[in-house]
Amino acid sequence: MLKLFEYNWQVRKDWLDWCDTVSEEELLKKRTGGLGYFLPTLYHIVAVEYGWICGGIQEKTVEIPPFEKVASVQQIKDFSVRCHEELAPFVYDWNDSLEDRIMIDITDEGEREAHTYGEVMRHLIAHEIHHIGQLSVWAREIGKKPVTANLIGRGLFDINNPNL
Amino acid sequence: MLKLFEYNWQVRKDWLDWCDTVSEEELLKKRTGGLGYFLPTLYHIVAVEYGWICGGIQEKTVEIPPFEKVASVQQIKDFSVRCHEELAPFVYDWNDSLEDRIMIDITDEGEREAHTYGEVMRHLIAHEIHHIGQLSVWAREIGKKPVTANLIGRGLFDINNPNL
Repeated sequence: MLKLFEYNWQVRKDWLDWCDTVSEEELLKKRTGGLGYFLPTLYHIVAVEYGWICGGIQEKTVEIPPFEKVASVQQIKDFSVRCHEELAPFVYDWNDSLEDRIMIDITDEGEREAHTYGEVMRHLIAHEIHHIGQLSVWAREIGKKPVTANLIGRGLFDINNPNL
Repeated sequence: MLKLFEYNWQVRKDWLDWCDTVSEEELLKKRTGGLGYFLPTLYHIVAVEYGWICGGIQEKTVEIPPFEKVASVQQIKDFSVRCHEELAPFVYDWNDSLEDRIMIDITDEGEREAHTYGEVMRHLIAHEIHHIGQLSVWAREIGKKPVTANLIGRGLFDINNPNL
């Protein structure tokens, strides 16, 4: 579980650095599919991970700024770092005994839905990778090479010390 | 690990069924980003999963047809089913003792690279989700609703019997 979160955090950081090489106009230009914009997609990835883990599973009071309050690359980098600091300990402390615990989500329609922690965590993994796939198409549309999506080759697994 | 493979297999099947609602011309039309076409992307997802698990990890002799030999929705559905039948037992039998085992990959440049099984399996999970994210953009480009990427709500986790 942890390795796929670490993968997502690396890829997200790479994309935020990639954004520094693109004009703000391109980052906020409407595109087809997904959320329709580069920067709001990266904001959404951060907000959703933070909301589900700290707000949903941990039942803490979370303050998620609206996009308009963090609408620059640097502000989203800072937002991502803040959220990561708060949620990472939960991910690093993850163990199998947490898999089947239940959290209650209130949907946008006001309904209560029960989910296991294991389902929520995998939902977050897939959620980020999916949206990043969309960014990769938009990058090519503006003639830029996207961040690599390869998990292999990122140094996440130390072959000489696989337990690290 | 297993749940994310099951998620990918469900989503892939949904996309292959979605392809039935789209003309072959659209499925084979060049697009921007990723592999550049709907059908070759779905073929690629199947071939990569099969190649790494059965060919790479299990060191079996695998026969992967070139895309031209399976260039229709039905043929890729059949190809996916055949590959799934052969590789699924390995995924269902997965256990933590396999995490740090080493497989040797020969890269396109002819170099030998060592990877842990755990790294390969997570690479495959991320690989499929990433490419599916690209399909979702192309779907909107042709005015079609993409298959949902949500992991929550697919019935992968039985809340009343979480151990299932």
